[in-house]
Amino acid sequence: MDCYPLPRDNARMTVRVGVINVTGFAGMEAARLLWNHPAAKLTAITGRSLAGQKLGEAFPHLACYHDLLITEEIESDVDVVFSALPTAASAAACEPFVRRGIPVVDIAADFRLRDPAAFQEWFGQPHPAPDLLAAAVYGLPELNRDRIRSAKLVANPGCYPAASILALAPAVAAGLTGPAIVVDAKSGISGAGRGSRGSYGYSEVNEDVSAYKVANHNHQPEIAQELAALSEAPAPRVTFVPHLVPMTRGIHATCYAPLKRDVSREEVIAIYREFYNDAPFTAVSVTPPHTKHTLGNNMCLVSPEVDRRNGMLVAIGVLDNLVKGAAGQAIENMNLMLGLDQTAGLDLPAVYP
Amino acid sequence: MDCYPLPRDNARMTVRVGVINVTGFAGMEAARLLWNHPAAKLTAITGRSLAGQKLGEAFPHLACYHDLLITEEIESDVDVVFSALPTAASAAACEPFVRRGIPVVDIAADFRLRDPAAFQEWFGQPHPAPDLLAAAVYGLPELNRDRIRSAKLVANPGCYPAASILALAPAVAAGLTGPAIVVDAKSGISGAGRGSRGSYGYSEVNEDVSAYKVANHNHQPEIAQELAALSEAPAPRVTFVPHLVPMTRGIHATCYAPLKRDVSREEVIAIYREFYNDAPFTAVSVTPPHTKHTLGNNMCLVSPEVDRRNGMLVAIGVLDNLVKGAAGQAIENMNLMLGLDQTAGLDLPAVYP
Amino acid sequence: MDCYPLPRDNARMTVRVGVINVTGFAGMEAARLLWNHPAAKLTAITGRSLAGQKLGEAFPHLACYHDLLITEEIESDVDVVFSALPTAASAAACEPFVRRGIPVVDIAADFRLRDPAAFQEWFGQPHPAPDLLAAAVYGLPELNRDRIRSAKLVANPGCYPAASILALAPAVAAGLTGPAIVVDAKSGISGAGRGSRGSYGYSEVNEDVSAYKVANHNHQPEIAQELAALSEAPAPRVTFVPHLVPMTRGIHATCYAPLKRDVSREEVIAIYREFYNDAPFTAVSVTPPHTKHTLGNNMCLVSPEVDRRNGMLVAIGVLDNLVKGAAGQAIENMNLMLGLDQTAGLDLPAVYP
Amino acid sequence: MDCYPLPRDNARMTVRVGVINVTGFAGMEAARLLWNHPAAKLTAITGRSLAGQKLGEAFPHLACYHDLLITEEIESDVDVVFSALPTAASAAACEPFVRRGIPVVDIAADFRLRDPAAFQEWFGQPHPAPDLLAAAVYGLPELNRDRIRSAKLVANPGCYPAASILALAPAVAAGLTGPAIVVDAKSGISGAGRGSRGSYGYSEVNEDVSAYKVANHNHQPEIAQELAALSEAPAPRVTFVPHLVPMTRGIHATCYAPLKRDVSREEVIAIYREFYNDAPFTAVSVTPPHTKHTLGNNMCLVSPEVDRRNGMLVAIGVLDNLVKGAAGQAIENMNLMLGLDQTAGLDLPAVYP
Repeated sequence: MDCYPLPRDNARMTVRVGVINVTGFAGMEAARLLWNHPAAKLTAITGRSLAGQKLGEAFPHLACYHDLLITEEIESDVDVVFSALPTAASAAACEPFVRRGIPVVDIAADFRLRDPAAFQEWFGQPHPAPDLLAAAVYGLPELNRDRIRSAKLVANPGCYPAASILALAPAVAAGLTGPAIVVDAKSGISGAGRGSRGSYGYSEVNEDVSAYKVANHNHQPEIAQELAALSEAPAPRVTFVPHLVPMTRGIHATCYAPLKRDVSREEVIAIYREFYNDAPFTAVSVTPPHTKHTLGNNMCLVSPEVDRRNGMLVAIGVLDNLVKGAAGQAIENMNLMLGLDQTAGLDLPAVYP
Repeated sequence: MDCYPLPRDNARMTVRVGVINVTGFAGMEAARLLWNHPAAKLTAITGRSLAGQKLGEAFPHLACYHDLLITEEIESDVDVVFSALPTAASAAACEPFVRRGIPVVDIAADFRLRDPAAFQEWFGQPHPAPDLLAAAVYGLPELNRDRIRSAKLVANPGCYPAASILALAPAVAAGLTGPAIVVDAKSGISGAGRGSRGSYGYSEVNEDVSAYKVANHNHQPEIAQELAALSEAPAPRVTFVPHLVPMTRGIHATCYAPLKRDVSREEVIAIYREFYNDAPFTAVSVTPPHTKHTLGNNMCLVSPEVDRRNGMLVAIGVLDNLVKGAAGQAIENMNLMLGLDQTAGLDLPAVYP
Repeated sequence: MDCYPLPRDNARMTVRVGVINVTGFAGMEAARLLWNHPAAKLTAITGRSLAGQKLGEAFPHLACYHDLLITEEIESDVDVVFSALPTAASAAACEPFVRRGIPVVDIAADFRLRDPAAFQEWFGQPHPAPDLLAAAVYGLPELNRDRIRSAKLVANPGCYPAASILALAPAVAAGLTGPAIVVDAKSGISGAGRGSRGSYGYSEVNEDVSAYKVANHNHQPEIAQELAALSEAPAPRVTFVPHLVPMTRGIHATCYAPLKRDVSREEVIAIYREFYNDAPFTAVSVTPPHTKHTLGNNMCLVSPEVDRRNGMLVAIGVLDNLVKGAAGQAIENMNLMLGLDQTAGLDLPAVYP
Repeated sequence: MDCYPLPRDNARMTVRVGVINVTGFAGMEAARLLWNHPAAKLTAITGRSLAGQKLGEAFPHLACYHDLLITEEIESDVDVVFSALPTAASAAACEPFVRRGIPVVDIAADFRLRDPAAFQEWFGQPHPAPDLLAAAVYGLPELNRDRIRSAKLVANPGCYPAASILALAPAVAAGLTGPAIVVDAKSGISGAGRGSRGSYGYSEVNEDVSAYKVANHNHQPEIAQELAALSEAPAPRVTFVPHLVPMTRGIHATCYAPLKRDVSREEVIAIYREFYNDAPFTAVSVTPPHTKHTLGNNMCLVSPEVDRRNGMLVAIGVLDNLVKGAAGQAIENMNLMLGLDQTAGLDLPAVYP
């Protein structure tokens, strides 16, 4: 594949960003979004299998990066690091940067669960860097903006938890809901990662819906942990079932929580609007939102509905799993950590239709 | 479009089938499936907009019906009638056949709810033929086989209820579950019907997931009614949320019910297997089933899973909304009503991939 | 995955069919179609990677075959053999059956090119069984029905050639066209085979069209060979470009051939209709045909159009690559070789929508 | 749908853009792309059916435009106008702006054919403003950059012609090709427009490929006209066949032209690279390009291949029909007409996967 350089003026850019494992979908997406960041520039990228190639040669849609070399390790000075490695491998890669005081956003799951015993339970191995857990901040700005601003290590939320927590947080924080919560989530196939195969082949996945890891996915404790932090005792119990649907991008989390008191739809919507009043990337919709209305941008659309016959809150959250569910969220966290405008580089309409 | 007649020997066929509104997706599918029925033959079809055309000319995939005329009304003698008209219009079309004692399968929703007040509540109009309700049998053979055998009017289940009820019935009947049930259902777009437009255009629906009629869909009382019939008091309360996913065919119902006692996965699976022991078209899967494994055939695959951390049953049902969710189910009901083999004409593997 | 046996009466079946490599898409599809064959039964199946499993356990959509074991080699007596192995491996597997006089349909490309030098040129290796080439008949019944009836070894056409040759044959045979032919073909992804990966992952293939092996695909000489057999000198030169489009099944071949004389659309259509007058599975359409009108069945729809401004014939052929382009064609050939009705087991409407 | 304003600094913007018929797909896409333009701002928009609504309310993905009102006519002063009306209606809407000297980019087909008789032939009606034709410039900067810079009325190319002409232009201009050209084009469904229905419903279009307007599409004379302008006599004759494939965005034009002399692939690639040396948005690929590598951005990827066996050039062009095939091209033309950087606002990587 040829390079087709697009002219641009990078002179005003100052923040140098390194991305570890740029060759997965989340890493690639960080590169895409950073291209238009007004104050940051991608300057160092790693990726074992493609080391030695230029990014723009390896991935034609990133041809603008025609002169940026993929290396085995981050070789130049950077001002911030994203790790998009698989969970468990990621902590080890983040650790040296954290110890040197360089801001790190970990897109993997290594630093999301605060309790190392929970990590052991859900990931089947000891936590790779338990002494760093205390310093890690869960990177959902709608909940933790100020703490992210002063953090040096941010655990970027999982794609399912981001949609689910944002859908439920206002109701849980307002004490509206009881503890038996169900999260039924639908994901596009890119959530399975680049080069995923076998059961993710086009012919097998197209025209198909299926659940997987029923009530046994490691995003379940992450959702429960963050809702518990918003809730009075008893902590919510979360039954989480993820599904694959035949589309490339998008998460649709449909969350069910019993209401503790009779409440009108209007009241709930007002609570949600108040909660997200100053959140630039989470908007409250009064009609069921479409994943496609977030394709390629950093928005999360949430929509609460009340089933008064049954005393049940139905709260929906939708987002693009590679943007607000991964790389866009990481940039938003970077912006906060570095004192930049929270929305810098992310002020993009969705690609529709 | 030309006709391309396939040769076949119809000599042994005896049952003459009429389909009212053959031009919708459910009616077309009945025609497709009846072509290979060993003891029934499609002999009369109606469809206002295409009346006067041959079925094989109107729909190229049904070219085998090159000499069957679409008429405004059923004009020849038939031994059984399917109505695939929209709800409310359907009852009026069925009524004369019912009164003459001709077996009728109503694929619409007119005769599903036994209480005319519930019809008024959910469909916003008085029931069009309340005196026929007592004679109608809910056409899910897994629950009502013997009653269907002696019925003259069968209410064919809705596509969502078929998947949801079959997923939950064994657990509810066994008294395992408490009353607060959630059904989160995902449907292919053909459920919206032929010629559906605007919001069902390809560009709008592709790469999109969205919920609709949240906790307000008229399949909700149908599910609740049938589960109540299986359950001790108190009757289950069902929160039902349907979603559209970008595929043509398929229903995936994920059902959540609190468990009243601690029960193992193995015990639940045994209960399900026993329940469906003699059901030819419902099979119990020990792994999450795929909608695509039912594409084009009359199977419903159900799979129960136990979330022991939270005391929750997760029961999944998948089927093809146009077959086990509509036309195939209608033929299965016809077979039972007429004393034919329950599986006649329906013994087809799914089309995969 | 559980078995869910469908009851059926196999008593009248007599022909025992063996399928070598039942675990690829073409082999699986042969199993699907044979289930409903009135005079043949699948009795022996091989597949290295899944040997020892029951077919109905390995593939849920074939659960009806709950007691048929996948073995490493054909171990029981069979009356006819299909080989769905990859090209070059297939000839070796077919050879012992051919030598014993058992009818063989080779779904691979081994016996399609009559000239072993062409095989060497296009497949990059010597022909594995050149002495069998003389006995092989090209298995397109629309052209070679009588020769297939007396053949013991049939080379089943490639999916692209089947659509392309059927689109062009009447015009070429009538001497209407000059030699510079272009075939632009679009294929669903299942043509790439089961378990194909990397570049055939859902996320990469969805929402994408691309060409591959431009003017360098080994179906090119197959198309040219068969058109040359229909044509006066000089033999047609075929430029063939295949494309992948985001669907699972279907081939759409758009063929361009310069017209040697001014001819009306009506005249061309009449020539096509006459040519396919007694072909049960090829129909002439006067409007552009849709691949979806053949999904799951054995039809090929062809449609000729005349660009009179430019003196160009545009002839379209569409079919399901796994049925008329592979397994269905193999059964049609089997029917002819064994003296059965040509359409036995194949009289199925397409699955639409 | 709620508004969710994204903060941004519009202070530096100066060019006021009006879009007539912002409610179609091309108009919506112009709004999406203009949001990030550094020197232009969308200030006036029309759309009959939605007049009176805010753009951000009518289209959730454009929620950033929460305060921009859709009106019936352009009501405020603008510095440049895009018309995205249907052909024939567009000329009338453009005319007053042209007469007042305001730069106009017509995204419809009204001013593309220079000969009003050709318009009559292909569009079936007299040209609505023949006296403006002489002033119109065909807006393909790769061919006409300098003329666009001084134009007041630019005819934005059709999506098919843009891909086809860019694929063929270097070879035609170099005199490599003979006159009998075939263009086989594949388009995503968004090319059929917003609210297109009936035959463009999801269930009908998904898993389907079909041709339409075979050799009879009004983009045919547009391609022929522009290639003729590059060519020595005799002018190329173009057989053009468009196809719909199941994806939302993307055009893939596969162009076949007989070579007048033996030429190597390397020589052809060198000619192409030289031709597009200073074109920021057309790149030469040495492997078959993927439509998905241009999703959402303004690139056209072209790739020439030589079929030496048959003396045929196969030249491929791919682009996003709503960007380089419509709204992005319009912005590129606007940039040139107004003396802005040609790439302003368009320097975006494609959205992949």
